[in-house]
Amino acid sequence: MDIGGTKTEAIALDELGRVEATVTRPTVSGAEGVLSTAEAAVAELAERTGRTGFASIGVGLPGQIDRRSGEVRNAYNMGIDSLAIGPELGRRTGIPVSIDNDVTAAAIGAAHLMELGGTVAYLNLGTGVASGIIVDGAPLRGKLGMAGEIGHLPIGRLGRPCPCGQTGCLETEASGSALKAYWPAGGEHPGRTLLTAAASGDRDARRCFELLVQGAASAIRLLGLSLDPDSLVIGGGLRLLGAPLRDGIRDELARWEAESPFLAALELSRRFQLLPEGSPAAAVGAALAAG
Amino acid sequence: MDIGGTKTEAIALDELGRVEATVTRPTVSGAEGVLSTAEAAVAELAERTGRTGFASIGVGLPGQIDRRSGEVRNAYNMGIDSLAIGPELGRRTGIPVSIDNDVTAAAIGAAHLMELGGTVAYLNLGTGVASGIIVDGAPLRGKLGMAGEIGHLPIGRLGRPCPCGQTGCLETEASGSALKAYWPAGGEHPGRTLLTAAASGDRDARRCFELLVQGAASAIRLLGLSLDPDSLVIGGGLRLLGAPLRDGIRDELARWEAESPFLAALELSRRFQLLPEGSPAAAVGAALAAG
Repeated sequence: MDIGGTKTEAIALDELGRVEATVTRPTVSGAEGVLSTAEAAVAELAERTGRTGFASIGVGLPGQIDRRSGEVRNAYNMGIDSLAIGPELGRRTGIPVSIDNDVTAAAIGAAHLMELGGTVAYLNLGTGVASGIIVDGAPLRGKLGMAGEIGHLPIGRLGRPCPCGQTGCLETEASGSALKAYWPAGGEHPGRTLLTAAASGDRDARRCFELLVQGAASAIRLLGLSLDPDSLVIGGGLRLLGAPLRDGIRDELARWEAESPFLAALELSRRFQLLPEGSPAAAVGAALAAG
Repeated sequence: MDIGGTKTEAIALDELGRVEATVTRPTVSGAEGVLSTAEAAVAELAERTGRTGFASIGVGLPGQIDRRSGEVRNAYNMGIDSLAIGPELGRRTGIPVSIDNDVTAAAIGAAHLMELGGTVAYLNLGTGVASGIIVDGAPLRGKLGMAGEIGHLPIGRLGRPCPCGQTGCLETEASGSALKAYWPAGGEHPGRTLLTAAASGDRDARRCFELLVQGAASAIRLLGLSLDPDSLVIGGGLRLLGAPLRDGIRDELARWEAESPFLAALELSRRFQLLPEGSPAAAVGAALAAG
């Protein structure tokens, strides 16, 4: 299950890791709302698959995750300060529940669904910016569960203040929250109308798109130089900008490569791909991590 | 064996991975020089240990490494454009030779000697800046053998041109080559006199030291946010600056943490350590990787 601020996607995996059924529901905000949304999704999956139960439930969600206690904290975009979602959902469903960071879950799922082996670096461009790293099938979660927080590297160009307390974080330039803050005309889901607005000459929209492309290219360079991974995948809601985003990132990387033989040798402009639209990567990854 | 621009350090490991003998020789420059230095070191180790041969030889050295062919390229600081050192040294000694990037070898050796498990991020502050990442005992070398090249992330503060073609690379501010370029008074080995000069009021020396500290702290933040590793180790020749370097990095990180609760939660100012002086990490790591 992938619980996001807007919707909850739940899938049933069979014993071989194949998707048996998919359920999508709007996420109801707040602790009780999130729990009842998740519970209802499990019930609907059981009905759809004709199963009386499941071996385990894996939940991917944003916020600070404590896998041991099953507790999530600071999941602000779903109105949660703190919730022991693992034990609570386990009690309601009678099924053991394991929780994971949504980006880690998406990285696990992307590697599985796209059949990527070796080292996989997954870049999530969503409300925030973060990465997931998979090494030979196993995610690097980090000693304190904070691996992949590259959105808070202060390597942006504009030095904008970040809610984290630093300035110039990547996330202040190349994320959904940056779009919302610096192109308010785009409303709640600015990604959906950004390209049309940019194409029709909206300067702020165009500037936001440029910063997004440059920030994403910086993140790919960062992951590429740090890990030189076997695969580089871009996921998250903003990947739905599709070909213009992909081409923009590729062209930006190619410009850098033209000036640096060293960078050119890494061939990053040809090495990344977008997670396919509609891929239930986070839900699948959460299920696999629980399995 | 760790072949550097100045010296070659060779160690003999017994079956349990313990250091049996150590030999240090000045590296003779050029292809023939490097080969004869290595050959002589092996002969001396055999003599010292009373062994007639070794099961394998592992060589760590700078430059572009092709582990499959045993070839090194662009190892400029030892006067080598291209050398099939693996096969050549193998022919001369009659022992199978495996080669590795010196930073990767040092990371493997540091994890072994310091008994560090899980994910180990090793930051090498030497002539260049690079990192080695070990996950559960296995190094991440990268698809093209370029993992860990974080010295060429253009995240420096001054936008200095880098020989790689980019500007502002970390390596242009926080490395031995940066010291040499921007504090020429320090001569060939500026690290040795930098602290004395800075303490006695040499402004350029002080500025170079500050940039080194800030760059190293940036690199620790980068590795910390990307990987949240179980251990963070700083090695390389510049680590011999010792306590002032360690304290400088710690204080810089602590300043950033004071402004960012998010960063403070990672506790990086308390999580890194210096590779002990005299540790033969690269030689040991190269031997282990060959074994």
